[in-house]
Amino acid sequence: MALLIKNGEIVTADSRYVADIWCEGETITHIAPDIEVPAGAEVIDASGKYVFPGFIDPHTHIYLPFMGTYSKDDYESGTKAALIGGTTTIFDMCTPGRGTTPLEGFETWTRQASGKAACDYAFHVGVAGFDESTPAQLREIVAKGIGSFKIFLAYKGALGIDDEELYETLRIAKELGVITAAHCENSTLISSLQKDLLARGVTGTEGHHASRPPRVEAEGVHHLMTFAELTGASVYIVHLSCVEALEEALRARLRGVDVSIETLIQYLLIDKNYAELGNFEGAKYVMSPPLRDASNQPILWNALRQGLIQTVATDHAPFDFFTQKRMGEHDFTKIPNGIPAIEDRVNLLYTHGVAEGRLDLQTFVAVASTNAAKTFNLFPRKGTIQPGCDADLVVYDPAYRGTISAATQTQNVDYNAFEGWEIKGKPTHVSVRGQLAVRDGKFVGTPGRGRLLRTTR
Amino acid sequence: MALLIKNGEIVTADSRYVADIWCEGETITHIAPDIEVPAGAEVIDASGKYVFPGFIDPHTHIYLPFMGTYSKDDYESGTKAALIGGTTTIFDMCTPGRGTTPLEGFETWTRQASGKAACDYAFHVGVAGFDESTPAQLREIVAKGIGSFKIFLAYKGALGIDDEELYETLRIAKELGVITAAHCENSTLISSLQKDLLARGVTGTEGHHASRPPRVEAEGVHHLMTFAELTGASVYIVHLSCVEALEEALRARLRGVDVSIETLIQYLLIDKNYAELGNFEGAKYVMSPPLRDASNQPILWNALRQGLIQTVATDHAPFDFFTQKRMGEHDFTKIPNGIPAIEDRVNLLYTHGVAEGRLDLQTFVAVASTNAAKTFNLFPRKGTIQPGCDADLVVYDPAYRGTISAATQTQNVDYNAFEGWEIKGKPTHVSVRGQLAVRDGKFVGTPGRGRLLRTTR
Amino acid sequence: MALLIKNGEIVTADSRYVADIWCEGETITHIAPDIEVPAGAEVIDASGKYVFPGFIDPHTHIYLPFMGTYSKDDYESGTKAALIGGTTTIFDMCTPGRGTTPLEGFETWTRQASGKAACDYAFHVGVAGFDESTPAQLREIVAKGIGSFKIFLAYKGALGIDDEELYETLRIAKELGVITAAHCENSTLISSLQKDLLARGVTGTEGHHASRPPRVEAEGVHHLMTFAELTGASVYIVHLSCVEALEEALRARLRGVDVSIETLIQYLLIDKNYAELGNFEGAKYVMSPPLRDASNQPILWNALRQGLIQTVATDHAPFDFFTQKRMGEHDFTKIPNGIPAIEDRVNLLYTHGVAEGRLDLQTFVAVASTNAAKTFNLFPRKGTIQPGCDADLVVYDPAYRGTISAATQTQNVDYNAFEGWEIKGKPTHVSVRGQLAVRDGKFVGTPGRGRLLRTTR
Amino acid sequence: MALLIKNGEIVTADSRYVADIWCEGETITHIAPDIEVPAGAEVIDASGKYVFPGFIDPHTHIYLPFMGTYSKDDYESGTKAALIGGTTTIFDMCTPGRGTTPLEGFETWTRQASGKAACDYAFHVGVAGFDESTPAQLREIVAKGIGSFKIFLAYKGALGIDDEELYETLRIAKELGVITAAHCENSTLISSLQKDLLARGVTGTEGHHASRPPRVEAEGVHHLMTFAELTGASVYIVHLSCVEALEEALRARLRGVDVSIETLIQYLLIDKNYAELGNFEGAKYVMSPPLRDASNQPILWNALRQGLIQTVATDHAPFDFFTQKRMGEHDFTKIPNGIPAIEDRVNLLYTHGVAEGRLDLQTFVAVASTNAAKTFNLFPRKGTIQPGCDADLVVYDPAYRGTISAATQTQNVDYNAFEGWEIKGKPTHVSVRGQLAVRDGKFVGTPGRGRLLRTTR
Repeated sequence: MALLIKNGEIVTADSRYVADIWCEGETITHIAPDIEVPAGAEVIDASGKYVFPGFIDPHTHIYLPFMGTYSKDDYESGTKAALIGGTTTIFDMCTPGRGTTPLEGFETWTRQASGKAACDYAFHVGVAGFDESTPAQLREIVAKGIGSFKIFLAYKGALGIDDEELYETLRIAKELGVITAAHCENSTLISSLQKDLLARGVTGTEGHHASRPPRVEAEGVHHLMTFAELTGASVYIVHLSCVEALEEALRARLRGVDVSIETLIQYLLIDKNYAELGNFEGAKYVMSPPLRDASNQPILWNALRQGLIQTVATDHAPFDFFTQKRMGEHDFTKIPNGIPAIEDRVNLLYTHGVAEGRLDLQTFVAVASTNAAKTFNLFPRKGTIQPGCDADLVVYDPAYRGTISAATQTQNVDYNAFEGWEIKGKPTHVSVRGQLAVRDGKFVGTPGRGRLLRTTR
Repeated sequence: MALLIKNGEIVTADSRYVADIWCEGETITHIAPDIEVPAGAEVIDASGKYVFPGFIDPHTHIYLPFMGTYSKDDYESGTKAALIGGTTTIFDMCTPGRGTTPLEGFETWTRQASGKAACDYAFHVGVAGFDESTPAQLREIVAKGIGSFKIFLAYKGALGIDDEELYETLRIAKELGVITAAHCENSTLISSLQKDLLARGVTGTEGHHASRPPRVEAEGVHHLMTFAELTGASVYIVHLSCVEALEEALRARLRGVDVSIETLIQYLLIDKNYAELGNFEGAKYVMSPPLRDASNQPILWNALRQGLIQTVATDHAPFDFFTQKRMGEHDFTKIPNGIPAIEDRVNLLYTHGVAEGRLDLQTFVAVASTNAAKTFNLFPRKGTIQPGCDADLVVYDPAYRGTISAATQTQNVDYNAFEGWEIKGKPTHVSVRGQLAVRDGKFVGTPGRGRLLRTTR
Repeated sequence: MALLIKNGEIVTADSRYVADIWCEGETITHIAPDIEVPAGAEVIDASGKYVFPGFIDPHTHIYLPFMGTYSKDDYESGTKAALIGGTTTIFDMCTPGRGTTPLEGFETWTRQASGKAACDYAFHVGVAGFDESTPAQLREIVAKGIGSFKIFLAYKGALGIDDEELYETLRIAKELGVITAAHCENSTLISSLQKDLLARGVTGTEGHHASRPPRVEAEGVHHLMTFAELTGASVYIVHLSCVEALEEALRARLRGVDVSIETLIQYLLIDKNYAELGNFEGAKYVMSPPLRDASNQPILWNALRQGLIQTVATDHAPFDFFTQKRMGEHDFTKIPNGIPAIEDRVNLLYTHGVAEGRLDLQTFVAVASTNAAKTFNLFPRKGTIQPGCDADLVVYDPAYRGTISAATQTQNVDYNAFEGWEIKGKPTHVSVRGQLAVRDGKFVGTPGRGRLLRTTR
Repeated sequence: MALLIKNGEIVTADSRYVADIWCEGETITHIAPDIEVPAGAEVIDASGKYVFPGFIDPHTHIYLPFMGTYSKDDYESGTKAALIGGTTTIFDMCTPGRGTTPLEGFETWTRQASGKAACDYAFHVGVAGFDESTPAQLREIVAKGIGSFKIFLAYKGALGIDDEELYETLRIAKELGVITAAHCENSTLISSLQKDLLARGVTGTEGHHASRPPRVEAEGVHHLMTFAELTGASVYIVHLSCVEALEEALRARLRGVDVSIETLIQYLLIDKNYAELGNFEGAKYVMSPPLRDASNQPILWNALRQGLIQTVATDHAPFDFFTQKRMGEHDFTKIPNGIPAIEDRVNLLYTHGVAEGRLDLQTFVAVASTNAAKTFNLFPRKGTIQPGCDADLVVYDPAYRGTISAATQTQNVDYNAFEGWEIKGKPTHVSVRGQLAVRDGKFVGTPGRGRLLRTTR
């Protein structure tokens, strides 16, 4: 089977030119102008369109037992939605709870994904505790090709770890040459503030931000920075949302701490007012860290532009509004956290980034694809377009105009936080390792074809 | 004329793969494995070697009337040395003195370069004053294709500008969509401290750093940041040398100031002890800002790695030790400033960056080539390897071992600040727009073939 | 003549006790409980009242030729108003314009004050230029007892100085052991932003803040900090208004710069919305630096409480609304700058500081009196209550309730920026060197009795 | 019994004058020149000497079960030494271990002190855990007059508390209007780094600093600042040692956190080289946080001068070198921590502060006495000299010259960290509530006369 993409404008983080791309098997084998059309090849005319490397979402929760329920997508629906939206690789958070070992978690998540995923995927494997058996477990996991751990400074008792565990995890991560992704919010402050708020009768969604103010996140980041500095470990801050946290990370970077930073498409575009909408509408916008004051948005955009923030992810975690989110109707601490966006991330970032002049095309590709590939050792297999790399390609139509709606979405959840938002651009064709998964905007891929990726060096 | 580079490992800021590169005329036209060798083509076997995009030195002084003398290179010797060292594009500082208009400066520098330069070049055009005729001049210069201005906060009365001129220059730069490169040291502090030091009998090279301590540079950076913030202009800090200055730039970036940062290969590798060597040897190491305490070096390397600093330049300004530097034997303020490095920048950065594990290959290419191309609007013509871009290519042998010496150098100056240093890697072949300029390490190019590049958007 | 203040609660920056105070001649000679009433002494019953050391306003403009007009008070009306409000010492800004020497300025101001001032006074003597005659002048002025210079980084061409002058002034100040008070705003940015605003048709009072945003002040502070650090001089930042400027000062203090900070009662209580009132009412609130966003106020109060800011002054500069302020009706840059407050500073600070729980009594005395005395070498003659010190005393009634109004004020200006504000506390009696100047809230002092104070060490 | 101190120069934080001080009973009743000598009064001629308010050491460990042994002083020897050195009030750390309640701790420490202490004392009562009974305990302790709590972020499992306990302690402290003193080092980092160092064979005293680098303290301070900000509690950082920690505290202060800062006389004068002396001599200099690089000293002195740091304490914790310190001869983690200084603090601070021109007299008194009195609600009973306050007075001879030596000291420990250091000044007479405790440099006080002070508002 062969694929030929003709006349598109190829755009990567450091190139931009018009050429044809010839894919044989799973790989790009030839890039040149005017490649002749071989017999039997599928040919896509990309004239007037961009051809991007497949986008990478470095932070999703497709399978997620959380707060007494499960996120709605499975690996079939979730990866279909990803592909429709131009994302060809996801990093799903494998997050076994405290009491479950990393290896057990890895097995559970692998089981969930295999046979269902239509795009490639990797895991950040959660470390939710640390005892004498953990080092051997982590060595084994890394030997299996896992190149990143995930830790939570929040959610103590469930997913979170304490300081000893943090130190030990970073130390072994350093030894194994593995990067550690961290959710940076101080766990105790959240639970104490939640308790105080509930005691004062604050039960609505407005309590969510109040229980997790920027300082709680800045504290988490500062804490991680200290431990990274003293262990020498490389770390990755997930879902950074505000200037206070960014400042702590930059101060550490100036001291030499090796830290990469992720923000979310949600923080770039929507603010805490959404989470305070009446009629419990705000619950749709409850995630953690919470949506912040809008004054943070230009700072986050600028930080992307200037290379202070490396990646834009989604933290995709879909919970239905009419059933699951309702669990917290009388107690905001019980609202399942998450704002689904796996399907819309790329289009929103293109629309509000590139089309509105906030990002150039190279930076757009870098933050939505290449940087994640580099950070997590998928480069140059993923994240770029070159002979020999995986034929994960997105033919993107910048002339498309449309509207986001839950009514037409593929992700399995009953609302869309960006309902009614216009998008200016959309993938028309998406390939995964040489096989079309989206043709003319429709899913044509193969659930189960997605592979678990090695992310070790 | 055609050039075929076979079997090299192509490395750009976001790709790495083995393929052949076929150049027709001045352009790369085809990149693929196993390109057949056409008749009449020059063929280079790059097996076991890297093929990098031509490197860019964003800050040189080939023609430089300064402190009563002239830098030793002309565009022939200077660009030969650049090419030998893998640099295929230079940004020379066109620095007319106060009283000379930017247009006159542009003409003078153009005259100096044309007919001599063997590689392509662009100018940062100096603005050393601002009167009612200046806006029209600058518009005309930009219309001619100049996309960057250069200003000095130091050297008041000679090259420097005052605050009104700074504001007006940045305002028109903003209007014209041009970036402004700035030498950031407070001029008055330098001259006042110099006067004080001389009055106290400090006349040796140890006075140089004392007259330009880090705070003088940090003040310059802070000042530029304020003016950039209030005018909205994009700025580029040349030759940042120390953590104090870096901190000021990062604080501004966090506030949203659009600032790119350049450091020099010299600051990364040699420190102020060199400038204090006895027997006036220190004079070889006198440049401004001065070489700093060695504690700054890991911070600068880390800043490159993490994207806080965008480019590595040389500020190449060669003055002979036995004649020109001697002018300041009894008064350090009269030592012509400059540490020549145009020939050695790439090899030193590869050796101490890549070979010693401080930088990965992608970052190396980014800071030595791609980022400068992007910052100054040469991308994707320069700074990457793709069909359609200029065939500026460097075949680089990572197995080479050799030693730097003035005795064997091409740059026209009687010493080398890195005399005796080992290098681990070297260009074997270098092409400029499809024509070999270096073959097997020897210059085979054509003085005068170099072109002035448009750097406007 | 003798004065006995009985039964008051004496409050200084580090004491609080009930006792009688016996003043003989100009001096406190005895503090004890139950001092017998000697024949012929004036006796004041201070039961239930506080007795504070006379308050010091470290920053006034009684005589001020400015922007083509003169501030309305003379030393008689101005010091009467000061005394009514509990201020027994003022530091008036002696601000000769460029082209007038410091000595000439000193003579002019001395002439204005002598024979008129009813309270003691000192001068911060302005240095508005620096040529070869200046050092001798400054030595002579210091020999006459002047212990502080005043410089402007703003108002270039009129009162401002350039960088060479700044360096030279600070250097000689360091040599002479004199502190330098500085108005910290970048002059050029103001004039350039003003020009831009006017060109865009912004002529109303809303242009004032826009032409002097916080960054303009922060730049001025950063600049002064650098020069203070490199000369080793002691400096005093006048009228600091915002967190951006405070941050720069604190960063410098952490590095070891010897800097004291003054804020104004205006910045603590009123914000930029006042300066944007319609019907040109905003002009009443035009001063420089401008009133800031209200978010700065809690930060300034906290900084007082924690010792980050040393003094609260007024920058008293009265210009009539109906005539003088009107000069800028069609051009905000022509509005004479100043918000008169010499009469109300202490009462407002007591009301909003002590009575509302923001400051304790000791801190109140420190920031309104003692710290200024210490900073400017009047301590322990002024700023405290002890045997041997000047009998400058304020009997203060904390039970008083009243309202500020231009209709009843003593300061010579046709409006009051705090019109209608309630005050909770007021001086009933005020003495200057042992003689009552205010009795039962009425002025009973002697114009011309005020003395010029030595402020050299 | 009555005491008359004649002709001394009274110096407080805000006064300086010559007068006689008459003390009746426990109180100063009269301050005036030329008080007649009543019959039966003890008269001290203080001509040519200073009279300071009794000094306050806000941080001592007289009774300290620690690391398997006990600090050597008891309340008799410890307070004798304090008095000899001019300290008339100590704040001893009442530090019950985990598992002992605050009330039990309070009772134990009270028992230890009563009948023995020769000077007044207060307790910072340790909270080393928090369960449902703790709030009632703390309320009861505060009702007994305790106005300050003490917590440890270090020493987890022994004295330290976790984040929940930290939040709860600060919240109830805020509610009760009590200030919380905190030892700010991250506990886990210390134990993890210690483990790593020991595993690598680092067992000598050089391991001490390596296990507690500045970042460990800065982390502790940042953590406390976050919790103080979110609870609104007032906090007091004990023994701040380095610029990294100071910067974190100042950043918080700028945000409005109510934080006071203590440094130690040790950090001002001796550095980490001492702790690395051979022959195990370094053990004499082991305390926590550790002695720092000497570059911190000018920063700490400047911070005192400028009011950034409020108090100078000792953290007095005497352990004999030949027996107790030896416990750690083969494992630095077993060296009992502490550098005794209760006897020498005032003389060292006077010598290196006032006599060498780093501090003026007022600041000296403020940081060694008045500020502690104000911070901990003893003011104006202690910390100043005024009618009605406790007659705690120090007659200080600035002409004294002598040498510190363990051979002649009163504190009960077999070495002195300042052995052989010259002092320039010494108390000749010291009174505690009107009774002489030191006469002509000799202890003449009464063990057991010292009282436990109320420190609640």
